[in-house]
Amino acid sequence: MAFEYLTNLPLEQARHDYIELLVEKGMGSVPETIPVAEAGGRITAEAVYAGISAPHYAASAMDGIAVLAKDSFGATESTPVTLTAGQFIVVDTGDPIPEGCDAVIMVEDIVENTDGSVTIHSAAAPWQHIRQIGEDICAGEMIVGSYTELTPAAIGAMIAGGVGEVKVIKRPVVGIIPTGDEIIPPCPNPEPGQILEFNSAIFSSMLKAWGAEAVTYPIVPDKYDMILEALNKALDECDAVLLNAGSSAGRDDYSAKAIAQAGQVLYHGIAMKPGKPAILGCREDKPILGVPGYPVSGIIVIEELLRPIIDICMGRGKAACQTAEAVLTRPVVSGLKYQEFVRVRLGRVGDKLTASPLNRGSGVVSSFMKADGVLEVPQGLEGYEAGQKVNVRLLTDKARLDNTLVVIGSHDPLLDELGDMMHRQDRSMYMSSSHVGSMGGIMALKRGEAHAAGCHLLDSETGEYNLSFIRKYFPNGGVKLIRCVGRQQGLMVQKGNPLGLKGFADVAKDGVRYVNRQKGSGTRILADYLCTKENIDRSSVYGYDREELTHTSVAIQIASGSADAGMGIYSAAKLYDLDFLPVCIEEYDLLIPDFAYDTPMVRQMLDTMTSSEFKARLEVLGGYTLDGIGEEIPL
Amino acid sequence: MAFEYLTNLPLEQARHDYIELLVEKGMGSVPETIPVAEAGGRITAEAVYAGISAPHYAASAMDGIAVLAKDSFGATESTPVTLTAGQFIVVDTGDPIPEGCDAVIMVEDIVENTDGSVTIHSAAAPWQHIRQIGEDICAGEMIVGSYTELTPAAIGAMIAGGVGEVKVIKRPVVGIIPTGDEIIPPCPNPEPGQILEFNSAIFSSMLKAWGAEAVTYPIVPDKYDMILEALNKALDECDAVLLNAGSSAGRDDYSAKAIAQAGQVLYHGIAMKPGKPAILGCREDKPILGVPGYPVSGIIVIEELLRPIIDICMGRGKAACQTAEAVLTRPVVSGLKYQEFVRVRLGRVGDKLTASPLNRGSGVVSSFMKADGVLEVPQGLEGYEAGQKVNVRLLTDKARLDNTLVVIGSHDPLLDELGDMMHRQDRSMYMSSSHVGSMGGIMALKRGEAHAAGCHLLDSETGEYNLSFIRKYFPNGGVKLIRCVGRQQGLMVQKGNPLGLKGFADVAKDGVRYVNRQKGSGTRILADYLCTKENIDRSSVYGYDREELTHTSVAIQIASGSADAGMGIYSAAKLYDLDFLPVCIEEYDLLIPDFAYDTPMVRQMLDTMTSSEFKARLEVLGGYTLDGIGEEIPL
Repeated sequence: MAFEYLTNLPLEQARHDYIELLVEKGMGSVPETIPVAEAGGRITAEAVYAGISAPHYAASAMDGIAVLAKDSFGATESTPVTLTAGQFIVVDTGDPIPEGCDAVIMVEDIVENTDGSVTIHSAAAPWQHIRQIGEDICAGEMIVGSYTELTPAAIGAMIAGGVGEVKVIKRPVVGIIPTGDEIIPPCPNPEPGQILEFNSAIFSSMLKAWGAEAVTYPIVPDKYDMILEALNKALDECDAVLLNAGSSAGRDDYSAKAIAQAGQVLYHGIAMKPGKPAILGCREDKPILGVPGYPVSGIIVIEELLRPIIDICMGRGKAACQTAEAVLTRPVVSGLKYQEFVRVRLGRVGDKLTASPLNRGSGVVSSFMKADGVLEVPQGLEGYEAGQKVNVRLLTDKARLDNTLVVIGSHDPLLDELGDMMHRQDRSMYMSSSHVGSMGGIMALKRGEAHAAGCHLLDSETGEYNLSFIRKYFPNGGVKLIRCVGRQQGLMVQKGNPLGLKGFADVAKDGVRYVNRQKGSGTRILADYLCTKENIDRSSVYGYDREELTHTSVAIQIASGSADAGMGIYSAAKLYDLDFLPVCIEEYDLLIPDFAYDTPMVRQMLDTMTSSEFKARLEVLGGYTLDGIGEEIPL
Repeated sequence: MAFEYLTNLPLEQARHDYIELLVEKGMGSVPETIPVAEAGGRITAEAVYAGISAPHYAASAMDGIAVLAKDSFGATESTPVTLTAGQFIVVDTGDPIPEGCDAVIMVEDIVENTDGSVTIHSAAAPWQHIRQIGEDICAGEMIVGSYTELTPAAIGAMIAGGVGEVKVIKRPVVGIIPTGDEIIPPCPNPEPGQILEFNSAIFSSMLKAWGAEAVTYPIVPDKYDMILEALNKALDECDAVLLNAGSSAGRDDYSAKAIAQAGQVLYHGIAMKPGKPAILGCREDKPILGVPGYPVSGIIVIEELLRPIIDICMGRGKAACQTAEAVLTRPVVSGLKYQEFVRVRLGRVGDKLTASPLNRGSGVVSSFMKADGVLEVPQGLEGYEAGQKVNVRLLTDKARLDNTLVVIGSHDPLLDELGDMMHRQDRSMYMSSSHVGSMGGIMALKRGEAHAAGCHLLDSETGEYNLSFIRKYFPNGGVKLIRCVGRQQGLMVQKGNPLGLKGFADVAKDGVRYVNRQKGSGTRILADYLCTKENIDRSSVYGYDREELTHTSVAIQIASGSADAGMGIYSAAKLYDLDFLPVCIEEYDLLIPDFAYDTPMVRQMLDTMTSSEFKARLEVLGGYTLDGIGEEIPL
């Protein structure tokens, strides 16, 4: 196969050609012999045959006497037969049948006489009440076939069949080499510019989940010689190697060169997104994958290109993946040039399964953690529209989705605590909360995509919260408004308030860098309202267009010194030890559709909300008032 | 709770009371702190919060220049702005944003001038093309909730969030104590009366599959003091203890006494079958289970009574089990006194899922291995009728059932080889074969419960095989007859033919112990035919009613000396090195319903059947003729 540099090969073809070549070169499953007792969950490399029978001797199936059936022939109620001491032997269940006997008579069916003889009133059929040799397993019979996962029962059957050791498939060992000058081992306090090396931990726990073993090598700086040396060492010690980072054709890219030197590069550049810069190479029959540095790209490359290789080396067929049909909540736009993998969050509300695309930034590992499924957009397709039905590969099992409370709307840290406490109280229940602002929550409820929505919408005319919005968007009702908390809203400023801001009016001052929330969020609406009230021209506020999605992310920009002020709730300011200029107490309530109100999950949430344990947690977070929490607010 | 001896407590109540008491006494999940990198698949003991943000510094999202946005204000196509060397700093993707800068302009959007300055034609918005601190994870935010299984992505997120160690739930350690004078460690050549100790291997591999750890202690003889000593030692070293065998109230039963002495016995005797003699006890908060010695009983007791305890100690909810509705192929009779657990073999043929009850002998571990599901018959119910729809708990996943070829009918070892080879050639395909004799196979096909049936039915009038039976039972067609093999049938006798038998006629001789096949099997029909032909009165044949279900099990009775002669095929005689008196070559063919004939699975089977590799295997087995194998026989 020709060396191709920065190709844009369709994923399917790349995978097929790559695997075909590796198999041609001899890649495949390797057997090893291990003790049967340790083989649970392993996969057989060949069929296993019984060495002995089970039972391996004829055993009494009853407590009673062993006899020669012939001696009992003719015995009836009217013509009983008496057996003298020599003609029978007392046996218990499991005892071997004595030489010369071929039947067992149950103790209930014999009459013991004083002279030690016994009388019977019915003849014994040959081999009655005897557990025959091989009743369970016959010597020489196949116990387990080839390439079969060994269950606990199979382990027992093999031992019962006299099998002491079994030939199973060796777990392939995959070496992981992290590279990059900016990469450092995990630590709690990295310097700016330093990137924590967590890819190896992700990759190895994926590999272990697939039944392989993973060896992580020390981080190698961007020096060609060192990368080549590390690669050769790993190739000597492992069955396959992942060379992480530096696989794009950019600056400091030595991966392709090193792989070509240590073995050969087959493809560099696959038509997949994320993951395009992937390198497919090998040394003899050992795969070498050049994996992009961004975690999300790396994970996709490994799932799509390494997993099928592991399956082959493990001697099993392609792992079947669960899929489900879901409705997209937002459009997904994709480039025609690539096959794209979009992580989605799934929500089961009523009969409807919805899929919400997650942040696609390939550096964002948290979106991976939140993902319940993967949506594949084929190469040559521009994407999907909102409301379109799509097929999603499941990462979360269906049962869990059915037991997950979907909360969409305004962000508040209390939701995480509420969800956590709910799950602690009932392990079968989960909460998934998405932060799209108060208005976003209302819209999600209207579309029937959520069980609950957090909202705190100020009606600037009435000064009243939520009610007027609900009347406007739910003119025919169908929802309940449940009081949650009063939240202290205010202006967050740096510790010690170095700019000496006195209130919101000061955000327009020269030299003040403001950081805002996204449009549609209750806090943004509040900020807009305050601008109007204070006659502030929004365009004169520096950074008013700088948008963050949560209170915490606003607070963190101020804490890190990249902004001087932003509106947010007290608990966020407290979390980062910021100064806080109170502006108002707002009503943060939960909007719940009638159909969901009486479901066990919502009930559980409301019970948790009103529990003293939850109130205690809110005390710790700070800035909340709890009067009437859990009460229904008349609309 | 009162001490109850040999109770017959309903399982549900016993389980509930037992767990309630243990939890009262303090049994539950125990946390341990481990490095995040090793925590994949473990379950969190508490919510995990980010220590640092990710990214932890504002980073350039592009290659280009970092600037102070203000300096670019006013720049348009018509009014370009030029920035002098001091006003910008070149940055690459991932570089920290330099002090005093708050925006990045992409390299594509700048014009470099000879004097080192750059010209731009559009203003930069503050914070454009900058990856904000906390874009992925905000310090202080909850990354993972309590009692949550850690996925690879969660591992990555925790490390990115500066979390080095995580509090997970400790795997409970379960001690297993095998007891019994007749029990010996696994070995290839046990003496009569000795029983190989394989329960511990089954139990520990079940426990490991549930996430617990298992420690197996040496076998303890039936001596009260030694059992008590072993029990106390295990209780000191483990979180729970299984005391195996001796839990019935029979002879040599010290379990209950020892448990009462080491701690307390709560219940002895549960209304479940198998498993009735189970003992539920504890020492403080440590569960002690007295488990019956029969493997099947033990497995059921552990599944029903220990697993829920493990789930609690692992901090997870009850594991959801997959179920399916299936049609019973045979009636299931159950005692009113017990809740019964019946293992079934499942078969998907067309749209029909059938459940065939397996041998319920509680010593039979091989039936466990063959089981695809469990049918529960509630206490107080007499059982189910054939053809009735029942709900079955799945042990085999649905995908595999859909890809399993169901073969029901006459037994031949070649079926195991065929199934094994099929799976070797296509890892996604499986074969399940049940031995019910040729007639049984025809009936199964008529009921639409099989994809294929092996049969070799001799028409004693015509001397012809299979055809007349098929015409009789399938008058309207609907099936194809595929030639498989010619099999050498004959009389199997002990090595060296010590009784000097000359042929089948001699089986009626005095002193000859015959072993037969079950009624409805082709070999039984052949034997009956030979009796008629030779004018032998069947009742004069000693052991003619002694029935075995397979050729191998007939052969093994002769090999072990418990019988002198039996009809069977050459390969079975060869397997046990018996002498063989040929009687005839019979036609062993495969009957396949039309609807199944063109399915991939049947095609795969026929391709495998005609492969040279398969023929080679038959050569090894011996006694087969292969002319025309795989050809369709005109009906």
